[in-house]
Amino acid sequence: MVDGAPAAESQDALLEAFAERLGAAREERLAQGVLALVGRLHDLIRDLRPTPDEFSAVLGFLTDVGHNTDARRQEWVLLADVLGVSTLVEDLSQSARGRATPSTIAGPFYRPDAPDLPDGADLCRDGRGQPLDIAGQISDLSGAPIPQAVVEIWHANAQGCYENQQPDLQPEFNLRGRFRADASGRFSCRTIRPGGYMLPKDGPVGILFQRLGLGLERPAHIHFRVAAPGFRTLVTHVFDRDDPAIGRDALFAVKPELLGEFRPVSDHPERFALAVRFFLAPETHP
Amino acid sequence: MVDGAPAAESQDALLEAFAERLGAAREERLAQGVLALVGRLHDLIRDLRPTPDEFSAVLGFLTDVGHNTDARRQEWVLLADVLGVSTLVEDLSQSARGRATPSTIAGPFYRPDAPDLPDGADLCRDGRGQPLDIAGQISDLSGAPIPQAVVEIWHANAQGCYENQQPDLQPEFNLRGRFRADASGRFSCRTIRPGGYMLPKDGPVGILFQRLGLGLERPAHIHFRVAAPGFRTLVTHVFDRDDPAIGRDALFAVKPELLGEFRPVSDHPERFALAVRFFLAPETHP
Repeated sequence: MVDGAPAAESQDALLEAFAERLGAAREERLAQGVLALVGRLHDLIRDLRPTPDEFSAVLGFLTDVGHNTDARRQEWVLLADVLGVSTLVEDLSQSARGRATPSTIAGPFYRPDAPDLPDGADLCRDGRGQPLDIAGQISDLSGAPIPQAVVEIWHANAQGCYENQQPDLQPEFNLRGRFRADASGRFSCRTIRPGGYMLPKDGPVGILFQRLGLGLERPAHIHFRVAAPGFRTLVTHVFDRDDPAIGRDALFAVKPELLGEFRPVSDHPERFALAVRFFLAPETHP
Repeated sequence: MVDGAPAAESQDALLEAFAERLGAAREERLAQGVLALVGRLHDLIRDLRPTPDEFSAVLGFLTDVGHNTDARRQEWVLLADVLGVSTLVEDLSQSARGRATPSTIAGPFYRPDAPDLPDGADLCRDGRGQPLDIAGQISDLSGAPIPQAVVEIWHANAQGCYENQQPDLQPEFNLRGRFRADASGRFSCRTIRPGGYMLPKDGPVGILFQRLGLGLERPAHIHFRVAAPGFRTLVTHVFDRDDPAIGRDALFAVKPELLGEFRPVSDHPERFALAVRFFLAPETHP
């Protein structure tokens, strides 16, 4: 064993060695992604120079995030969301969309198995909250109606809780449903006005954000997923533009096009109406 | 709702918004780390422009890594190791070490609870493998002996398996022990010659590396952890310089100073000897 001669500066050599080993990869896109990731990670480490204890803390955090992810809770999606990563991926994937309604992240509370409901049905299964009537129109980029589009809707209750966060307190599929637009691209439903909420504070991501003094608020919103043959599936939110937290969404998803007006219905002071219009891009749209 | 006017280019705005929100953080180092990470992640995403499906696949991979981590298996450490991240953190934390023996990563098989053994004791509890005699010397940077240093040793068996990977096949604490150097900084033990091995191929990290055509080989080595009051604790490997995989360690940990010679003992063709010398940096060393 050579006695303690200092090692040559091996940092760039390490990345070069990695790139060279990757030369044999058959899955080019995967190799490109991993190499780009490794380069950024190594840069980050050279910038920050974490101590071994700090590095252990990072591994401990990742371990905790992993152990807080199960069939009911996706802490990775939450982490990607609050770091603005999910929104950036969405934004980049639609940068040439023209008039199309902006996509946003689906968020961790989507369920693909919501029940099919007839037009005009009520999503609210526990009778709690201020009534809200939603009327929607699905159009293509020219404004022509898209008939028979499938519209999934899900949102939190007035206290800001989704039914799958509160299986013991809310009926299953409360405030969720799947509708089919009519021949003129219209759909409607009844529901209740959603409340804004805080993202979970009790997991590693929430705890980190509290240590950083970062907010976890989400302004009140309703999720929509609209699918029609020949069109790109749209997943989006419509936000309550009057929510006081509208400027500090923890997920960076608020866009001007997604601000909705929850109008009081005349003669019914406790009843609201929301009109939404979605423009879908063709499937072949770049 | 505004009808489909394209959103302003919001990508830099997103990072700026994040930085602004972080301005209130009290833990400055943590905030610096998170902001640097977020900047790199956003850069990476702008470079790669992952599709939503690709992004889902990444989240699925992270979920799998999390679910393959438990008290017995640390897939995060493995991932950090094979991406060269762990070695880079180690290298940077000791860049001004002078003559000190280079630290390497501890790896995922370290156990802090190895039994205390008397000088010269045998680590091998199942009698299998080619005998190896280790003689060691612990010194400070001037070469003066460090008496009473605590030396932990752990390594794989001849088939390249650690006892905690094979609890049903190897006795507990096989090939592990903790020794105390004598007044002249010397220690010795008997053991068997370790075999090289492959990192686990059955978890998400191993599967990813196989898809990338990347090797998971580790050349044969013995781990040492040396601690003494007033000195920086040294965690290092000594590698078998004659292992055919010596040039392609999956963990990038091989350094010239860490190459050991497993010499055949004269008159005992099946017996080997290894002499090691470790130079510890003072605790206050930058």
